[in-house]
Amino acid sequence: MPDPIDFYFDFSSPYGYLAAKRIEKIAARHGRSVTWRPHLIGAVFPTTGSKPLLDIPLKGDYARRELPRTARRLGIPFRLPNQFPFLSIAAARAFYWLSDSDPAKAKALAMALYDKAFGAGEDISGAEAVIAVAAEFGVDAEALRAALDDPTVKARLKAEVDAAIARGVFGSPFIVIDGEPFWGHDKLAEIDAWLETGGW
Amino acid sequence: MPDPIDFYFDFSSPYGYLAAKRIEKIAARHGRSVTWRPHLIGAVFPTTGSKPLLDIPLKGDYARRELPRTARRLGIPFRLPNQFPFLSIAAARAFYWLSDSDPAKAKALAMALYDKAFGAGEDISGAEAVIAVAAEFGVDAEALRAALDDPTVKARLKAEVDAAIARGVFGSPFIVIDGEPFWGHDKLAEIDAWLETGGW
Repeated sequence: MPDPIDFYFDFSSPYGYLAAKRIEKIAARHGRSVTWRPHLIGAVFPTTGSKPLLDIPLKGDYARRELPRTARRLGIPFRLPNQFPFLSIAAARAFYWLSDSDPAKAKALAMALYDKAFGAGEDISGAEAVIAVAAEFGVDAEALRAALDDPTVKARLKAEVDAAIARGVFGSPFIVIDGEPFWGHDKLAEIDAWLETGGW
Repeated sequence: MPDPIDFYFDFSSPYGYLAAKRIEKIAARHGRSVTWRPHLIGAVFPTTGSKPLLDIPLKGDYARRELPRTARRLGIPFRLPNQFPFLSIAAARAFYWLSDSDPAKAKALAMALYDKAFGAGEDISGAEAVIAVAAEFGVDAEALRAALDDPTVKARLKAEVDAAIARGVFGSPFIVIDGEPFWGHDKLAEIDAWLETGGW
């Protein structure tokens, strides 16, 4: 079995959402599985000197036009939340906490959170919003509420974010195939070709 | 006849080079011509807060790996000049000056400059380097040397750059089709689809 593909994303990244809707099918076509790795892109901004995409003059205007256009082409529901950018720490902590006991459910939770944020345009930034979505998957609300405040869970996310940065993951989505990095939703076709051919 | 496609690029942009190698064929396939519009992306940095791509931590490392990989896939010769980033003002001035009398020759000059910079990895930042390339197209060296210092030619480039920024052109390549903006070399497949379908 080949190694899983690493799929880095930030829950507050609309391009990460678009990639999340597509990456499993692309990987499966080539017999690959996908490891989902929530990242906090804001933690990289001090290094790259960047800031939230939609807050950047000109580039933000472009993204506001380009995002729904790309979603339309792909037939993916898309709506920016009123509050954007938003904090994605609670969502990321919930993911890693759940993934230790049930990776498949954690992935389903991630997709549900993304669908709520960028499919329906609703708020997923707070702990209670994340807990409500997780409850739909049978995740115990009290247990998750406690986990979100647990120093161990906080440290786990920090370690994941630090590891991602150490690996050079500066954006979302960011996909690593057998050590080869691909940045951006626009790279999915190339990723498909890379998996098909084994690289070039 | 449909309007030409606007192809904005910076002579010091490696992704602009890759797009320059491909955009004419894509446009021609759909019966469209291309207006080449050299831009000075550095002039947009104060607005966007960005800086030269390869100087950005993490992102620069990624681009150094991704650029030759993409070029390899496309069969396009690629080599970063030792001096990078470099000033592209002389190249851009030469282009606009020449385009007034001979648009086709200006386009050929642009491609030759790009080939020299990113195909051969040689320096095209200075006036004399630009004049030497232009001479291969029968452009009079003295006339071009004078033009590069001509206030009218300088003002012309400034007006083009200002107009591009006013239009929201913050990157290279940046392609506008009937008012619809597309940023980045990774968008060429989507541009092809847009031209094929008339948009979505």
